[in-house]
Formats: sequence, structure tokens, C-alpha cells
Amino acid sequence: MSIVKKLSFDAGCEEKEKYTAQNGDDYYGQAHTVDLDVASKYSKPKEAHWLVRRIFFLSWITSYDREQAFADLIAGITLGLTIIPQSIAYAALAGLSSEYGLYSAFIGSIIYVFFGTIPQVSIGPTSLMAILTLQFCADKPVQVVIVLAFLAGLVELAMGVFQLGFIVSFIPAPVTKAFTSGTALIVVFAQIKNLLGVRIKGFPSIGDFFTNIRPTDAAMGISCMVVLLSLRLLSQVNFKQDTPVTRRLKKILWYISISRNALVVFFTGLLVFIWVKKSSIEAVPFALSSKVSSAMPTIKLPPFAFEYQNRTYVFTDILHELGSGIVVVPIVAVLANVAIAKAFVKDGNLDASQEMLTLGLCNIAGSFFSAMPTCGAFTRSAVSQASGVRTPMAGIYTGLIVLSALSILTPYFQYIPKASLSAVLIAAVIFMIDLAPVKELWQTNKKDFFSWVGSFIICLVAGVELGLLFGIVLSMVFILLRLGNPKFEVTLKQHESTYYVHIVPQSDVYYTGVDALRSELRGACRLYHNDFPVVLDCARFMQFDATFSEMLISVAKEMASHDVLLILQNMSLKVQQMLPVMGNVRFCQEDSQLSSHLQVEKEAPVVEAKL
Amino acid sequence: MSIVKKLSFDAGCEEKEKYTAQNGDDYYGQAHTVDLDVASKYSKPKEAHWLVRRIFFLSWITSYDREQAFADLIAGITLGLTIIPQSIAYAALAGLSSEYGLYSAFIGSIIYVFFGTIPQVSIGPTSLMAILTLQFCADKPVQVVIVLAFLAGLVELAMGVFQLGFIVSFIPAPVTKAFTSGTALIVVFAQIKNLLGVRIKGFPSIGDFFTNIRPTDAAMGISCMVVLLSLRLLSQVNFKQDTPVTRRLKKILWYISISRNALVVFFTGLLVFIWVKKSSIEAVPFALSSKVSSAMPTIKLPPFAFEYQNRTYVFTDILHELGSGIVVVPIVAVLANVAIAKAFVKDGNLDASQEMLTLGLCNIAGSFFSAMPTCGAFTRSAVSQASGVRTPMAGIYTGLIVLSALSILTPYFQYIPKASLSAVLIAAVIFMIDLAPVKELWQTNKKDFFSWVGSFIICLVAGVELGLLFGIVLSMVFILLRLGNPKFEVTLKQHESTYYVHIVPQSDVYYTGVDALRSELRGACRLYHNDFPVVLDCARFMQFDATFSEMLISVAKEMASHDVLLILQNMSLKVQQMLPVMGNVRFCQEDSQLSSHLQVEKEAPVVEAKL
Repeated sequence: MSIVKKLSFDAGCEEKEKYTAQNGDDYYGQAHTVDLDVASKYSKPKEAHWLVRRIFFLSWITSYDREQAFADLIAGITLGLTIIPQSIAYAALAGLSSEYGLYSAFIGSIIYVFFGTIPQVSIGPTSLMAILTLQFCADKPVQVVIVLAFLAGLVELAMGVFQLGFIVSFIPAPVTKAFTSGTALIVVFAQIKNLLGVRIKGFPSIGDFFTNIRPTDAAMGISCMVVLLSLRLLSQVNFKQDTPVTRRLKKILWYISISRNALVVFFTGLLVFIWVKKSSIEAVPFALSSKVSSAMPTIKLPPFAFEYQNRTYVFTDILHELGSGIVVVPIVAVLANVAIAKAFVKDGNLDASQEMLTLGLCNIAGSFFSAMPTCGAFTRSAVSQASGVRTPMAGIYTGLIVLSALSILTPYFQYIPKASLSAVLIAAVIFMIDLAPVKELWQTNKKDFFSWVGSFIICLVAGVELGLLFGIVLSMVFILLRLGNPKFEVTLKQHESTYYVHIVPQSDVYYTGVDALRSELRGACRLYHNDFPVVLDCARFMQFDATFSEMLISVAKEMASHDVLLILQNMSLKVQQMLPVMGNVRFCQEDSQLSSHLQVEKEAPVVEAKL
Repeated sequence: MSIVKKLSFDAGCEEKEKYTAQNGDDYYGQAHTVDLDVASKYSKPKEAHWLVRRIFFLSWITSYDREQAFADLIAGITLGLTIIPQSIAYAALAGLSSEYGLYSAFIGSIIYVFFGTIPQVSIGPTSLMAILTLQFCADKPVQVVIVLAFLAGLVELAMGVFQLGFIVSFIPAPVTKAFTSGTALIVVFAQIKNLLGVRIKGFPSIGDFFTNIRPTDAAMGISCMVVLLSLRLLSQVNFKQDTPVTRRLKKILWYISISRNALVVFFTGLLVFIWVKKSSIEAVPFALSSKVSSAMPTIKLPPFAFEYQNRTYVFTDILHELGSGIVVVPIVAVLANVAIAKAFVKDGNLDASQEMLTLGLCNIAGSFFSAMPTCGAFTRSAVSQASGVRTPMAGIYTGLIVLSALSILTPYFQYIPKASLSAVLIAAVIFMIDLAPVKELWQTNKKDFFSWVGSFIICLVAGVELGLLFGIVLSMVFILLRLGNPKFEVTLKQHESTYYVHIVPQSDVYYTGVDALRSELRGACRLYHNDFPVVLDCARFMQFDATFSEMLISVAKEMASHDVLLILQNMSLKVQQMLPVMGNVRFCQEDSQLSSHLQVEKEAPVVEAKL
């Protein structure tokens, strides 16, 4: 069939009308010019109600089906089994006891269901937030941490409300890729010790590492890895015949494949449980997860004022204690969240403002449940992805698992072997490490190459948030270098018997290009010994501001002193009126008008420029 | 006379040739296209030898005349009388004894003569550098300060060598103006206490201020102000008759006018000196300048390793002590220096890279003479300007005065009343306070208005360096907002009997605009129900990088699934080759070629898009 469809309607309309389309995507209001009668056949796509866009749950829940529900159930349970040990670990990293981590995981998971847009994202404690919390709240009462969560949430909410989501546009593709690979590699490094039962703090030497491998843990970890990677392949099995039986079988294999993470955690936990029942917990030869303390979350106002060690903290004291953390924590959270979202979203269709809003709500709501600051975690997104998540509904199951961990299931979570959890995490992220772009980027675009390599290395060496920031700033610098140095085409042109110097910018000129333009105008006058009028094309001047007008006035004065005419082409009437009247400055739009200016000048001498 | 000069040569040449002109200004290498035979009449202006551009002294010394010499002498002496008390004060502010300030003033003044480009700039101790030095070197041995000067100099030198001078383009005119007015206002606030003899530390209340005015100092200060402002008017006196006598008289009045600062300081000092000789120094009813300790500077290597209080500091220890100061100090110094230079340079012709280089040399050389970190001072530039400085040669006299203050004139400098020095500073900066732009900026450009107001307020409240930075960042954000949200014109057009959707960017598209473009392409497809081919004009795509190609490939895939043809117009051949072959993607340059693409597609069905 033909790619271009035949058009049935008559074609011959000349009349055009401009209107501004206001569909979902171009919310900035671009003008769409269309042929009126053809256009009348096309109505603007109906925009989703703002409530549906904000409570995103409403946009997908109506078409939620059984298959999605099953996939989300599996993914939600798997994520629950992952998030519990993570929450405990990250709470400890932040210097808090385990229940604070679990409260955060519970609230983040539940709130995200209703407002979140990306199925893979899981809001809860992360290593990044834990480290930042420690940095700003070390040795301070836990109430300060909870108020930090509240304030960070407020800032994130504000960023969403003010539609700052456009910052995702400032993360170039190579930086997202470097961030993804870098973070995945960090996860592998961090988990390999647990996988093999190495119990050395910090970075062991290679020798120390290998001599400290605990065979039982390593056996457990490696067998889990083998099982996980084999089950992963199960979903790709194809049968020769396509019968109802093989189709059903294929579906069952697919279910087993996406349940692999939950299955591995469940069965290894069951193994340990039986082992413990048969002998004792000391007899188990595997490193096990930490004990969960049983404490259901209760709703209460964030502690804006409290007493601690005979000292009364009022709100301003807390603000003083937190200092720049109030700004740094939400900015890092938003940046990390947006980068993770960008790494997992399939079609580039990311409503980052909504994500900021959701993150803000998660943190604000969290602070009412004594939670620590949260954001999306890369590892959990990878696990969700690997478990076939379909909608944010998975968060409901994750939240319920976390809640049950805090109540009825409390005694059972400690039986999960650390090695099997590490195997789940490593198996989820290992396929995200992709070093292939390096060669390709080197060949196609050196700037992209350096963005990738720089971001990747800094992610590994100095932390993912700095790696991300480096990539964004570096790419920005490349743009700024161009903006600070726009190119101009300077041509000696001829119109009838008159020559003129035509200066045409080759890119948009902002105030940053004004110095370069000044040099260019002066250079053109000097090169041609002030012999010809100068025609400056202003079509690509994006801002007409004080910087620009100041330069133009000073150059026009210089040119007047050498009797050189300056013709400003394609300058809007509004901008023309912003310039003072100058004897040697003319305006024109078309090249044909140019002629009259040049001709008139040649015949009738103009008055001396008065400035 | 006519502004457009008559051209004598014949006009009718069609042949054109491109060549790249390499004159002084367009060192970035723009292409100048010219008519060959006309152009042959114009040779490129001879570029100054690189040595002349670097040792800038060589460019003006050959045309140095007696009048300039006299003006520079007056300005240099005035500046010397200003810089000595300033150096002592700023050295104290940095926690050092007075000679370190004077060494810095001496070296800065001398080096600037040979490399500096702006007559008004005076490199030496400044309040900004003193505060930063205190911040990074408080309670540390003085050797650390000297090494800081050396390292800061190295960084500044490197910035000059790597031509980072383009950063001046990023300071918009309103920010320069706000910085100038803000700094001038700060100087007035800081000096008004000395002018009126108020001896309260910090910010006194208005009541305290007025009750603490010392009548003798106030009388001295106010009379100096009256004298200075009256003498300032002297240079504007006009005589009715123009005879050799009146012309000579006018010149004498001009000399007296520009010598006013030096005269005031000299005669008030003389007054005190006589007073002391007649009675005693205790009997003088004025606050006097601090005593200068006599110690000639000696040249020696900066102390890269030293012993202090039984501890040996090696180079790495010093680096550790200085920390981020090694980067922060030079960046702030360069920013302040460049902003001052921009405020005083007349024609916008500022070689900021050369200024960075010079500042670096001043600091490196300074560190060999035990100097503290230096940069240009706003007050001194204002005094130089008010004293009619003509070339950087004035620095020689300033340097000599400082040197004599350290040796033979040591006993005399303490007689200068503080009130008269304050009067000189206030009279020099008071005319730089210009609040007029506010109203104008509000009317012409709101962004400029907010840049001005924000920078001005932050200058006053949080410090000039932060005010400057705020202005730069805010103006940058305005640009980034546009870059993140480019506008597109989407038009339904008709070619013969075929309709197509034409998408033309209204501004340059960088990777930051890729998300907006994706939305626009999708929006156009959705609006027209995938009925028409989409023609995307790529002429304004400034970067073709991974972000762009990834988006294009993914959107092309989506369009292929709806059988929509994507025609990329004005895409360079090189870039075309970077894209994979896609069934529904075509390339064309002109609108006429477009026709063939559209026609062919309509007649011959193409193969199904393979991706």
C-alpha cells in the first residue's frame, strides 16, 4: 500500500487562517497555519481534563485489564520484596532506625499509584537521599529529618506547579545513557560483596576480596543468578507449532519468567525458614536480611516544633539546622527522579512536571507518616521493568507488602538471604550496562562522546548526581560557547550601481552574541575603509534588549562619524520604535525596499547625523 | 555631503569567491564572501603582532605624548594617595599586617602598565579579595596567603591563555549598570562614617549615627567634598572669547580640575603636618590614616614549603588548607575585574582574555614579592577616571608613590585625614550611581528590568560578586527557557494536488529543543489524523547529535506504523548519512524537489517501512 494516502477532497483553496492549536502536547501555544476548508475537516484532538492529567490514575484505570493486573501484581510483590531490605539499609545509612525507611517506602508506593505516570518508577528511600539526609541531618533529632522531607516535598511540589518539567529537555541522550550505565555499574559493585558473602567494609583490595568470599553465600548467590538468567530466557521461547496449547504454554512460561525475582526471593527465604525450623537460626550458613521492627505508621502533623534533649526546637530552629539542605535535597531528588524516568520511559513522552508534583506529594504525605526524604530508585525501576510492570498500580501491592512487613509478616522477612536479593538486583541492572554508545558517539559526534565519557566517569567516581550534573552543564557549555560566538556571513553585494556590505547572522543572536556582532560591524567597516553602507539583517535577533540597543547606538555613532549608512533589515516596527532617531540609520524589510534606501541616499545628501 | 560615497569602479561582476578574513576582531574566523574584483581593492587590515597584543604597552607607548603623560602623572599620584590607605585597610581586613597590602599595590600597579589595556583599572588589594582571603586563610600562616596569590594567578593566567574572555559577552548591559550603581552605593555607605567621623563598628542605627558625628571630622569631610565638587565643575568653564589667553586659561583650569583629588589629599595632609609640628599629634582633632611600617619588598620564591609553629607545611598541605579557594578566588577576581573593566571601557572594545592574563601575571609576580591576592578595585577606577587618566602609564607613578610610602615617605602618610580620603572616594563614585535605567528598562524590556533590580538589590544585600552572578545567571535562564521551548510554525500546505504538513522552527533548535520538536511532530500527526506527509525544515537545527537522531528515529518509527511519510528538508548530506536508512524518511533541499518526492510517492507505492 502507498504510504501517502490519497486525498478525496478538492484542492485549490488559497485563503489561509491562523489559529492556535491547544492540544495536549503543544501547551506552549504554537501557531498552526492551515488551509481553512481542509483544516475544517480536522478538529483539535480533545485535551484530557486537567484533573485527569493531574490525578493520572484516572487516565489509565478505565482501560485496566486482567493481564495488566496480573503483571502488576507480580511486579508489585517482587518490588515489595526488594524495597523492604533496601528501606532498612538506606534508613541505617541515613542514621535512622529501620521503621522510618519502611514508612517512606509504604507512602511513596501508595501515592505514586494515583499521581505517577511511569510504571517503572518506585518512590521510596534511596542511597542518594540517605546520603544527603545524613549530610544535612547527621547527629540531629529525627524530627529534623521528617521536616526536611516535608520541606523538600514542598519545593518539589512548587517545581511541578511552576512547570519546571522542561528541565528534562536539558538532559541530552548521551548523558541519560551514561547515567544509566554508570548507576547500573555502581549497583553491581555495591551488590557483588553481598552476592559472594564478602564481609569487608569499604573497598577491599582484589586479593582481600577473593580470600574473603564465603562459599555458602557465593553458592547461593551464583545459583540464584543462574536461575534468574535462565528464567529470563524463558519468555523468549518459541514453539514451532501455533496451537491453543502452545499459546497457553507460552503464556505460562512468560508468567514464570516475569515472576522470577519474586520466586527466587520466596523460595530461598522458604529454604532458610525450613532450615531454621529444623535446627536454629545460627546454623544457617547464609548472611540473612536485617530484622524488621514491628511498628505500624500513624498519621500526625510533621514535628514543626518539638523538644529534644531539654532543648525546644521551633520551626526557625529547624530551618536553621537544615540550611541549604532545604534546596539541595529537592533539587537532587528531582534531577535523579527525572533522569531515571527518562531512562525508563519508552517513547520520550515524559511529563516531568507531573513527576515533580508527584514526588512532592509523596514527600509531603510521607512527612505526615514520619518518613525520610524519598525519590525514585534506579535499582527498583530496573527490578520493576524486569518483572514486567504495566501500570503504576503495582505500587499498591508493594505498599501492602511493606505494610504487612511492618505488622503480620514481621518475623518472616529476616529469613531472606542477602545473596539472593543481591542476585535479583544484579540480574535486573546488568543488562542496562551498555558501553556500546562510546564507539558510535566517537564516530558521529565528539561532544556527545565527551558528555558520555565525562558523565560516566564522574558517576562512578564522585556520585551519580554529580555525574548527571556534569553532563548537563557540559552540554550547556557547548551551547553557550556557540551563543557567545555567533557566526556572521559578511558579503559585499551589489544593487544596481551601488555596493553595500551585507551582514547576515548564521544563527540566532541573543545578548550573548552582541559583542561578536559589534566586532563584526566594526570589522566590516574597517575592511572596506568605510566606503559602503552596511545592511544588517536582524531577522535572527531573538531578544531586543538594553545590551543590544546600547551596542547598536554606539556603533551607529561610530559609523556616523565616518559617514557610513547603517540599514537595519527585517527589524520589527515595535523594536524600531525602541531605538532613538539617528541620522545614519534606516530600516527596511525586503531587499526591494533596500534599493530605494540606497538610491535615495545617493541622490539627495542626508542631513549630518545628529546624536 | 552624502553619507553613501560614490563608487568609481565598474559594477557588473558576477563571480564570487569566499575567503576567510583574519583581521583583529573576527579571530573566530568568519567567512567573508565578496565580489572578487571589488574586494581586491581592499586588503585585510594588518593585524597587530601577537607580542604587541600581549604586551599591550607596545601598542600605545609609541604615540605617547606630553599631554597624556601629564594627565597620567596627576592620576597616578592621586591613585597612589588613594591606594596606600586602602591597601593598609584591606590587608587588615584580610588579617594581615599593612606591608602585605602595600606590596600587592606596588606589584599590581607596575605589572598592569605593561600588559593592561584599560587606563582606569588599578590592580591591588580590594575589599572583595580581602574578604575571600580571610574566608580561605583565616588563622593560617601568611605563607598560605602568598601561595594562594600564586595559585589564583596561575588559574587567571590559564583563563587568559585559553581565551575565556568571551565570558564578558555573558554579562548583559543592565547587569553591568546595576553592578556599577550598587558598588558605588556600597562605597558611599562604607565611607560616609569616615567622612563624618562616626566611630561605630558595623551598621549603626540612624539615631546612633547622628549623635556620633564628630564635628571636626565632619567639617573637614564636608569642606573637602565642597572643594572637590566645585573643582570638578572647573573643567566645564567656558569663556566667551576664544583667544590664546582664554585657551591657556581653560587648560590650566582643566589641570587644576583633574588634580583636585591629589590637591585635596595633599593640602589636608599638609595642614595636619603643620598642626602636629606646632603642637603634637594628639592635639589634631581629625581621625588620621594608619601608620605605614617601613619595609621594602624583596623578591623571593613563593613559600611552597615552610615551617610554622613547629609544623612543616609542604605544597600538598598548603593545597589542602586552601581547598576550593584555589578556584573560587580567581573566578571571583576575574568576574569582578571583567565587570569593572566593562563598566569603564568606553567603546565596548574589551579584550577580556588579555585582562585575565594581566591579572594572572599581577598575582603571580605579586606572590614573588609576598603579596596577597589582588584584583581591580571599583573605587580606584572611579578615582582614576575622575583624575583624567589616559593610559595605564599612571600605574608607574602609583607604584612609585607606594614604594616611597614604604621607604622615604613612611613618616608622612599618617598625617592624611581619613575624612579627606573618604571625600575623594565618595566624590569619585557618587556620579556613577544611576537609578535612571530602572524606569526605562521597565518600559522597554521587563527581563532587563528584573535583571537590573535583582542584581542591584543582591549587590547591596549579599555582596557585589553574588549580585553580578545573579544577573548573569538570571539572563542565562531567560535564554535557556527559550532554548528549551523553541516555537514551530505548523502549516498545512498544498503542492499541486498533494497536501503536506510543513513544520518550520521559528528559532534555532539545539538538543534542548528536541523534546519540543518531538511533541510538535506527534501533535501534527495527531491533528491531521496521519493523513498527510510531514515536511520538517531542518535548516535551523544547530547540532545534530545523539539526542536529535534518537528522537528522529523513534518518531519516524511511530510515523511508519501509521504510514506517514517524513521528509527532512535542508538537512546537510553529512547529517543525512548519520541517520539509518528508513523506509518512510526522505530528504530534500528545495521546495521544488519536494514536489518530486510527493509525486513519486503518490504514483508508485513504496515498500513497507523496514525498521
